[in-house]
Amino acid sequence: MNNIIKRYYKWPTRINEINKNNSHLVGKEVKVKGWVRNIRNQKSVSFVEINDGSSVKGLQIVGDKDSFSKLKYGSSIEINGRLISSLGNTDKNAVEVQLTEPYKLIGQCPDEFPLQPKNHSFEFLREIAHIRSRGNSIGALLRVRNESTQLIHRYFNENGFINVHTPIITASDCEGGGEQFQVKSSLDTKDALFFGQPSYLTVSGQLEAEIYASSHSRVYTFGPTFRAEKSNTTRHLSEFWMIEPEMSFIDLNDNLDIAEDFLKYLISNLLKNSKDDIEFFNKRIDTNLLSRLEKTLSSKFVRLEYKDAISLLQNNGHSNIKWGDDIQREHEKFITSHFGDIPVFVINWPKSIKPFYMRENDQSQSLNDSNSMATVSNMDLLVPTVGELIGGSIREERYDKLLNTINQLGMDKEQYSWYLDLRKYGTVPHGGFGLGFERFLQYVTGLQNIRDVIPIPRYQNYCKF
Amino acid sequence: MNNIIKRYYKWPTRINEINKNNSHLVGKEVKVKGWVRNIRNQKSVSFVEINDGSSVKGLQIVGDKDSFSKLKYGSSIEINGRLISSLGNTDKNAVEVQLTEPYKLIGQCPDEFPLQPKNHSFEFLREIAHIRSRGNSIGALLRVRNESTQLIHRYFNENGFINVHTPIITASDCEGGGEQFQVKSSLDTKDALFFGQPSYLTVSGQLEAEIYASSHSRVYTFGPTFRAEKSNTTRHLSEFWMIEPEMSFIDLNDNLDIAEDFLKYLISNLLKNSKDDIEFFNKRIDTNLLSRLEKTLSSKFVRLEYKDAISLLQNNGHSNIKWGDDIQREHEKFITSHFGDIPVFVINWPKSIKPFYMRENDQSQSLNDSNSMATVSNMDLLVPTVGELIGGSIREERYDKLLNTINQLGMDKEQYSWYLDLRKYGTVPHGGFGLGFERFLQYVTGLQNIRDVIPIPRYQNYCKF
Repeated sequence: MNNIIKRYYKWPTRINEINKNNSHLVGKEVKVKGWVRNIRNQKSVSFVEINDGSSVKGLQIVGDKDSFSKLKYGSSIEINGRLISSLGNTDKNAVEVQLTEPYKLIGQCPDEFPLQPKNHSFEFLREIAHIRSRGNSIGALLRVRNESTQLIHRYFNENGFINVHTPIITASDCEGGGEQFQVKSSLDTKDALFFGQPSYLTVSGQLEAEIYASSHSRVYTFGPTFRAEKSNTTRHLSEFWMIEPEMSFIDLNDNLDIAEDFLKYLISNLLKNSKDDIEFFNKRIDTNLLSRLEKTLSSKFVRLEYKDAISLLQNNGHSNIKWGDDIQREHEKFITSHFGDIPVFVINWPKSIKPFYMRENDQSQSLNDSNSMATVSNMDLLVPTVGELIGGSIREERYDKLLNTINQLGMDKEQYSWYLDLRKYGTVPHGGFGLGFERFLQYVTGLQNIRDVIPIPRYQNYCKF
Repeated sequence: MNNIIKRYYKWPTRINEINKNNSHLVGKEVKVKGWVRNIRNQKSVSFVEINDGSSVKGLQIVGDKDSFSKLKYGSSIEINGRLISSLGNTDKNAVEVQLTEPYKLIGQCPDEFPLQPKNHSFEFLREIAHIRSRGNSIGALLRVRNESTQLIHRYFNENGFINVHTPIITASDCEGGGEQFQVKSSLDTKDALFFGQPSYLTVSGQLEAEIYASSHSRVYTFGPTFRAEKSNTTRHLSEFWMIEPEMSFIDLNDNLDIAEDFLKYLISNLLKNSKDDIEFFNKRIDTNLLSRLEKTLSSKFVRLEYKDAISLLQNNGHSNIKWGDDIQREHEKFITSHFGDIPVFVINWPKSIKPFYMRENDQSQSLNDSNSMATVSNMDLLVPTVGELIGGSIREERYDKLLNTINQLGMDKEQYSWYLDLRKYGTVPHGGFGLGFERFLQYVTGLQNIRDVIPIPRYQNYCKF
């Protein structure tokens, strides 16, 4: 019986625990269950690699020549054996398993199994999204996604934040103009909707998170958000996860500090905790990955005023951009590249192109400056390869200013009365940011298409499973 | 300047850190920001209690008689002062703050502030759900909800589970017959839907979680799920959060062990980590709460065969129930009460009243037994006061058996072809369970209405904010 590793109930030993502990375990007996990833027959012995999803590295099983003659790729099996030093391995501490009894077949796998031991295109893998997690790339992605999830909760928990589950079904539209999905019920009638009013899938939990920043000081959301956009790109999904911290009593400098610290915390811990998986991505997906992540960690992120970003672009051949314009993908690429491929915060953007809730900066300009030159206290973080990774701001906490903007934009004041209330009763300076979880995962894995960093993607004309 | 507690950026000291560390801090200077919860004027001195959401216990500030004469309840303020021993407090270690400079008003609060320092009904608080988190009950609930969230992730992470974000928008209906919300887009036309097919809000991530249990062995989901039911009860929401672990290589006994261990882990750690908040609920909401939770921890959960549950009910005055019937709320109450108000697993239910995916038990009965006596390998956990808290099962991993059931139920085989594939390619015994997060929070707080254990509830005719 297996007695080397603390057992949880009657579960089999996990392969990552064997690989982690290895050489001193030689001689111990183990019971392992997993799926067959490789079969190699030699003259007198045969080798089988099995994987249980705990690690990108499988476990090698050695048996007599005919031990595995009927075994097929993709099958699930149980093996019982003794750990021995791995002879043919460059890692001197590597172990493999010598069978002490015949393997037990759990579930057979026929030859038509669509995932074969070769490189498949990501396009093909998306067609078999219910199988693709058994391959190395998506298997590793799921572990990195999980480890990132754990780290996100840990970071906020260690720093006194309260996690809040803001509603998915909502009556309000945070960004304004974002295409929202509508929620309908078969109980809806022409005269009476299920919720008594039109309802949508949330595009951001920020407005509701502000409620809780106004009672618990530091909060964060981590949940799904939705955009019904036609975007058919490698950087957009209809359903994606967002992390949105919201903090009272901070200013823009704090917000910048926290965002930078948060990102570096995640990346530095991923490099430790998900070492094997990140190294796999560096080797097989993007050979610049590790150096880019290490550079991110060792650099102080640039903080660039929007107006200086515009000048920089104008002085470098982007003559068609002017103050008041949005910054396009090509501009983002120029900016991060200009600073040596490190993250760049662009701050204090024109109020005219940003959402209503951002705090207007005090203007030091003379009265002659037109109102159209007003800026807001905000930040967009641009990173190499992925582009915009974080968007954040200080929120307008002054009742009169906010009401003014709501009126100027012709928004429905009644709909935002609760939001205005937060400014009426004990208002506080506050702000936060949103990190797109899938964009982050693209950044730390090098995976090119956002559809491959989420278990089951959702985009126009794709809603399988 | 504050130098007693590790500062994070320039943030003010959190009140829970002051209250936690207390007596040895006497004499230290602190800067605290929060909201005014109470103002008491005495002959020569005045007392103000402020709260920053970090603890149900506020911090008492002492000033000269007229220090706070203009201050209003609900305002946000910054105070700078020195920690002194609290004289009038039964806790000898308690500290309070002697102002060293006048308080700074951050945000005024007018007299019409709807939340006053008195007991409001939960019904009223639901009407001001954007304000109610500043009160003690919902404030404490949010902290317990957060701590539970952290513990859930920690438990699974420590035990080798991978968190997976299964899709919210889905094409499939896990439970069958559950009323699902439909997802529509303004880009939909009569001829072409946005996703190319009808799409819904998920009622459970289980089916998709099985994909990842088939590659990563142990996984869990923790996300929002939806039911478009008319249910206007204290135990149902249209939008609620579910925790769904899914594990390969387990049987029903393992599943029972894990569910019991998981619940006890959460409760025992909550009693430690959220002590003040749970004690508040025990004092103010449900005076049986602590004893019920301690009894839950010290008891081995009962494991009762469904058929024995039916006999028990029949022998105790519930003569109208028979084998094959569902167990109603009144029956649940009888069962948990019968065993002394501890949790009871009812296991191995009739196949005819359970979903298609549950594993059919091998029948030891003679061939004369009709097929209608077939049972499935499942479990429902009944707990005092809340009723059904967990539902789980071993899943049918045998391709032919599952296909049979799908055909017998007249389900669309094509729609479930991916689910059948999991049984075709290297199938493994597996199972799991679902824990309704809000039901759990009702159990650990004693709050009667499920609408009060979620930040912003969603139910028929309610979709504010």
